[in-house]
Amino acid sequence: MKKICFLFAMHAEAAPLIEKFDLKEEKGFFAPLPPVLYKGEHNGKEIFVVLNGQQNGLDLVGCEPATLTAQLVLSTIRPDLLINAGTCGAFKSKGSAIGDVYLSDKNICFHDRRVGDNGGWYEMGVGFYPCMDATEMADELGFKLGRCTTGSSLDMAAEDLAMITKNEGMLKDMEAAAIAWVAQLHNTPLLCIKSVTDLCDGGRATEEEFRENLSMAAQKLKEACFKVLDYLLK
Amino acid sequence: MKKICFLFAMHAEAAPLIEKFDLKEEKGFFAPLPPVLYKGEHNGKEIFVVLNGQQNGLDLVGCEPATLTAQLVLSTIRPDLLINAGTCGAFKSKGSAIGDVYLSDKNICFHDRRVGDNGGWYEMGVGFYPCMDATEMADELGFKLGRCTTGSSLDMAAEDLAMITKNEGMLKDMEAAAIAWVAQLHNTPLLCIKSVTDLCDGGRATEEEFRENLSMAAQKLKEACFKVLDYLLK
Repeated sequence: MKKICFLFAMHAEAAPLIEKFDLKEEKGFFAPLPPVLYKGEHNGKEIFVVLNGQQNGLDLVGCEPATLTAQLVLSTIRPDLLINAGTCGAFKSKGSAIGDVYLSDKNICFHDRRVGDNGGWYEMGVGFYPCMDATEMADELGFKLGRCTTGSSLDMAAEDLAMITKNEGMLKDMEAAAIAWVAQLHNTPLLCIKSVTDLCDGGRATEEEFRENLSMAAQKLKEACFKVLDYLLK
Repeated sequence: MKKICFLFAMHAEAAPLIEKFDLKEEKGFFAPLPPVLYKGEHNGKEIFVVLNGQQNGLDLVGCEPATLTAQLVLSTIRPDLLINAGTCGAFKSKGSAIGDVYLSDKNICFHDRRVGDNGGWYEMGVGFYPCMDATEMADELGFKLGRCTTGSSLDMAAEDLAMITKNEGMLKDMEAAAIAWVAQLHNTPLLCIKSVTDLCDGGRATEEEFRENLSMAAQKLKEACFKVLDYLLK
């Protein structure tokens, strides 16, 4: 493994990693498109951090930016491993707490792509895209394992919750499945590292809880990224 | 205008256009990615038709495939105009009927990306991406005009309907806004041609009505694509 590339949606989540490894921005690498590339070396390996970039001063979140960034990264940088690091919602009823760090487990799903129930359309919508087996890594590093389930909204429509329940989703995020689809097309392994900012069944408004815990969860995420990198490069 | 590129999600929708203009498949152009390119000439202009392609024998529909295809097309073919042609749902209460053909009007929206209400996040989620002014074209060719609103599901969650109502969406589809975002990034004009397969407020199940009317709507779409092309190349 020579090249590892982290994908983040939000700059605040990526900043500690960029600082720690003294990564340098490769200005204009994806111009005129918004993604931003940082690059450096660690233990003889090339480390890349790519952000979706911004429009109108806001970080581009969600599945379309994630798709675009993943495609650009996989067709130019061609990393040996893609790591999607970010924050997520989770469920108290499934044993999650705010600040928990998870590695992705089992195939990654969409919960807001309902395009039919028959003839393979259900599976097409949900995706069930592969991610790398992180069982040993999670065990050694003390992280939990959970299935990522992705949608384009912070809120929880009844239809989305039904899909999450049916497919045993544990980590509700806004990018993982889109990245996993593109990674599958390029035959590149993917690992997700997700830090919990809010509980979908905790009785509070997601947006409020998310903003309140983002900074703490980003710290946990940073530490988790360092640990995972040390594990992979040992 | 030297190059016009049509983007379709479904092969059945594109087949009549490919046949009419005797377009030839450029095999492997996007390999190993699924999109498929057909190319030819008409009135001295280059005509391209690009499909999202298939996985597991099914046409790739939805926003992630639309994002990927638009990015590939805009970074390689670099057309002067992008035309997203496809079928859509519409609203009886807004005067639509099954088989109606619409050209895109006003900025294009997402209705299932709810990422906040303040600080520009609402607008970021909805998008409001530009499309070309087709007022004169619609008038001359006898088509209606309507705002496209895009989401990843055939069904209608209450949260989605609220967004569509708030933003005065008329044509509910699964690709237009994703394509419009990428087109905006590349500064390429976009026109959508949409043919109505189902009425979101007609009292019938969308999937059933969609499958029943797909063939008829695809015929209407084909005729509309011919008319638009004649108008643009006259």
